[in-house]
Amino acid sequence: MNSRLKNIYSRLKQRGLDGLLVSLPANISYLVEFLSRDSYLLVSEKESVYFTDSRYTEEAKACLKGKIKLKESNGSVFKSIAEVSLRLKLKRLGFEERNLAFAEFAKIKELTAGSLELIPTHSIIEDKRVVKDAQEIEKLKQATKITALALEHIKKFIACGIKEIEVAAEFERFIRYHGCNASSFDTIVASGPNSSQPHHFSGQRRLRDSEPVLIDFGVDYQGYKSDLTRVLFLGKIKVLVRKVYDIVLKAQELAIKSVHPGAEMAAIDKVAREYIASKGYAGCFTHNLGHGFGLEVHEDPRISGNEASAVRPGMVFTVEPGIYLPGKFGIRIEDMILVTNKGCEVLSGSIDK
Amino acid sequence: MNSRLKNIYSRLKQRGLDGLLVSLPANISYLVEFLSRDSYLLVSEKESVYFTDSRYTEEAKACLKGKIKLKESNGSVFKSIAEVSLRLKLKRLGFEERNLAFAEFAKIKELTAGSLELIPTHSIIEDKRVVKDAQEIEKLKQATKITALALEHIKKFIACGIKEIEVAAEFERFIRYHGCNASSFDTIVASGPNSSQPHHFSGQRRLRDSEPVLIDFGVDYQGYKSDLTRVLFLGKIKVLVRKVYDIVLKAQELAIKSVHPGAEMAAIDKVAREYIASKGYAGCFTHNLGHGFGLEVHEDPRISGNEASAVRPGMVFTVEPGIYLPGKFGIRIEDMILVTNKGCEVLSGSIDK
Repeated sequence: MNSRLKNIYSRLKQRGLDGLLVSLPANISYLVEFLSRDSYLLVSEKESVYFTDSRYTEEAKACLKGKIKLKESNGSVFKSIAEVSLRLKLKRLGFEERNLAFAEFAKIKELTAGSLELIPTHSIIEDKRVVKDAQEIEKLKQATKITALALEHIKKFIACGIKEIEVAAEFERFIRYHGCNASSFDTIVASGPNSSQPHHFSGQRRLRDSEPVLIDFGVDYQGYKSDLTRVLFLGKIKVLVRKVYDIVLKAQELAIKSVHPGAEMAAIDKVAREYIASKGYAGCFTHNLGHGFGLEVHEDPRISGNEASAVRPGMVFTVEPGIYLPGKFGIRIEDMILVTNKGCEVLSGSIDK
Repeated sequence: MNSRLKNIYSRLKQRGLDGLLVSLPANISYLVEFLSRDSYLLVSEKESVYFTDSRYTEEAKACLKGKIKLKESNGSVFKSIAEVSLRLKLKRLGFEERNLAFAEFAKIKELTAGSLELIPTHSIIEDKRVVKDAQEIEKLKQATKITALALEHIKKFIACGIKEIEVAAEFERFIRYHGCNASSFDTIVASGPNSSQPHHFSGQRRLRDSEPVLIDFGVDYQGYKSDLTRVLFLGKIKVLVRKVYDIVLKAQELAIKSVHPGAEMAAIDKVAREYIASKGYAGCFTHNLGHGFGLEVHEDPRISGNEASAVRPGMVFTVEPGIYLPGKFGIRIEDMILVTNKGCEVLSGSIDK
């Protein structure tokens, strides 16, 4: 029996639910323990059913373990979900309110009218995923290792005259030769003034001497994502760039030092934000300090000024302060950390900055 | 004034709506005419507002034209959407029921309770997008051209002993050197028995002599997607593989010939399906014949047995029959076609098969 699934049964009981329709791909992948695409999972103690279509049936048959039934549905998957819910005589079916479209909710409701109550839920599975187990940490460490190798490769690859998108191209090639199926998001290679856009599209601009090159990238290793940012330099580093770089680096160092079980997320964010403000760059750090990663590249926890909850051992998240000076340049430094029983381990700690 | 936006105003009036909340990224990109990420667009004749967060503000400022206002929202975007709707005194706001999560709907409803009616809609913008304009066709042709170049490159690249994922890696590298920012979906390189899974994950299997190598891939050129499948061969083609290949090729040829304005989509699907069945492979063609593509790699129209509507000039879609023999091999041949006034143009017609 799949222990992740079993754990969900008890969570459902606590909420008075006799079933849960799981629609977020990462939640489904977590529960079935393989990388699932275009599927839905109905979890109930009576029976759990995995719905997919003919494109994935062969793969699903090979990968589904435990007691999960496979239902191939080539017409409306919502009709199949309604039918199974009625057959199992479910009364109160939870659904993931953030990941089920209004029309999908309405369709299932219509098809089960009178027999099935649909209950909006959130975070039932995410609350489990937020603390990583040993198997997940192993995969995240492997993802980090490949990320480090890729960065070393890219450092040798970059040179004046190469386009941003060509750096991204080389990264995409490299990681597939080193055990990954994909990057975890569109690689950001932002040179010179482009680096002031936190999520710049890598484009046709050529790298130039004495400019920062911000690279924000990650890999997908067996479904587990990494996320790292470094600023590289070709030639001389200008005085202002160096000054800003050192402020961001120090802000990150202080924030990482403040991480320990029980530390409030908002407080960790505040450490970096206040340091940056104290150096005269208030307002230039325009996003949250960090975010969890795992089966999604952005997942809980959110390390932001609004987040009053505390970090716990086994959580992994990024710490990525930045200073952006529109039209000039931007600096962001991002590492991946794992909260331990006493403090934290910087998973990407061996990667130079 | 943006003519795409103007066209939507009249569609809203017909439906008795005074605004539309657009949440599907491709629909937003279509209306604002740049590649939008993590945004929402509220369209109303009174005022149209583009909501994004600080990561994209600089880019959005540079790209937003016409009368669209920019609203940076770093807290809850739904709070901002509710505020703007109330400020504009909207009464009946349509939303995209397939692309707004239940929780997002519920949040906006809660924040505007009593003042704003939220009306589920679908296809308001998709119905426009289904027929491509000259500017879009130009981009799709460019995407197809790069796809053709990539295939020529891959044909020279493949050899026995190379892994599936390495072929995908080379493709990812190549297209970024030729004007694309990304592939349009996870490249499928399926060798030997893997080719019987229509959506195989490219993996660690090495290409072998005398086996089919199915490659299904596409590019993203300025937001516009291509989608092409070819089966390549290393060494000798086995008799059964050749036989099945010829059946699929003929089925595709017949289906393409049947395309003309007014032809029913189900009828086009039927042409290929019946031919395959007549050759003894009924049940082995397990998916729809084709799908539209453009700002999304899968969009309307769906060329399926259930689709009674007719094709129209300016529509583009794939024609991709397949025969899958689990455990043995699979063959799929996919081209991209544009419906013309008299019949159709095969956009990928110059690519060998």
